[in-house]
Amino acid sequence: MSYIPEPIEKLARELSRLPGLGIKTAYRIAFHIADSRDLDAEGFSDAVKQVKDRIKICRTCFGYSVDDECRICSDDSRDKRSLCVVERPQDIFVIERGGFRGSYHVLHGVIAPLDGIGPSDIKLAELFDKVRSGNVGELVIALNPSIEGDATTMYIAKSITDLKIRVSRLARGVPAGASIDYVDDTTLCRAIEERQDISC
Amino acid sequence: MSYIPEPIEKLARELSRLPGLGIKTAYRIAFHIADSRDLDAEGFSDAVKQVKDRIKICRTCFGYSVDDECRICSDDSRDKRSLCVVERPQDIFVIERGGFRGSYHVLHGVIAPLDGIGPSDIKLAELFDKVRSGNVGELVIALNPSIEGDATTMYIAKSITDLKIRVSRLARGVPAGASIDYVDDTTLCRAIEERQDISC
Repeated sequence: MSYIPEPIEKLARELSRLPGLGIKTAYRIAFHIADSRDLDAEGFSDAVKQVKDRIKICRTCFGYSVDDECRICSDDSRDKRSLCVVERPQDIFVIERGGFRGSYHVLHGVIAPLDGIGPSDIKLAELFDKVRSGNVGELVIALNPSIEGDATTMYIAKSITDLKIRVSRLARGVPAGASIDYVDDTTLCRAIEERQDISC
Repeated sequence: MSYIPEPIEKLARELSRLPGLGIKTAYRIAFHIADSRDLDAEGFSDAVKQVKDRIKICRTCFGYSVDDECRICSDDSRDKRSLCVVERPQDIFVIERGGFRGSYHVLHGVIAPLDGIGPSDIKLAELFDKVRSGNVGELVIALNPSIEGDATTMYIAKSITDLKIRVSRLARGVPAGASIDYVDDTTLCRAIEERQDISC
């Protein structure tokens, strides 16, 4: 595509590095930005810079925040004794959609020996400090259901077996609305293993 | 999602206005930009601004260009007598992928009476000037196969019937590699109407 003007080519290349953007969509967006007389390029560039400049890590949950403490941590109406452990800051807003109204702790990773990431490389010490402070009544571990996520979940659960608090992880099974025909074998196996008794 | 920090929320909103980006992808990208310590925010913002500042309209074909004349128009190895008419600047690079090696003319729209766009609102006068100059031997009209695109194609063809030049439009039919089972009815109708004789 050598005839494409260089600034458009360059923007498309920058865009195609972003997650979820294929090269075709990247070109479509780059041309759209060239097209739109009304697109506020300053505003758009500024929005990117604002994210880089103003977003910091919340001192309590290690999620993203504009202030020293994020809006969830500083919200007194939230249940502080129920603590949900997630891998990445964005996972907080996924769990929020699920209706969780406790507080969070972001690990910023999971234990992944093959990638050289050990327990001390993620925010596990901070988690154990919180839990051992006596202010946590329940720990909901909401890591991704990967090998590393599962191993990290087990590591956390085992590390605090001496404490008398409830430790749980997200349920696994067939997604709502899915036809079981289209569900992958691993999910199906788990859905069967973790089948729920029906009492009526 | 009111707990999402405002700069991330704002960037996601800006991103979701771009074509082909759903709100979920927009949030994923906004969080990714917050995540990546190594992402060159200045470079990214700059790439957007460069597109807005440096891209102009080629004085010959009305496509996008960094210079007064684009690289296709200023390339002497291209066939100047074969002229391809497209709707938008980005369509040039679609037709390039099809192996066309002539030159282009961008209309910047199609005739669309319902949207109040008449023949004088797009670059038709400039097209007719070019064709009537005697320097064009063949006109390939490559507009989108919509009602407006087809009407504009017929309008152009009828306007120059007095000239003895070949006027064609893109062939229509079943896409390569497609199973005819999955082809929509309109395409199928056209593929049958415009069936090609086989001579062997």
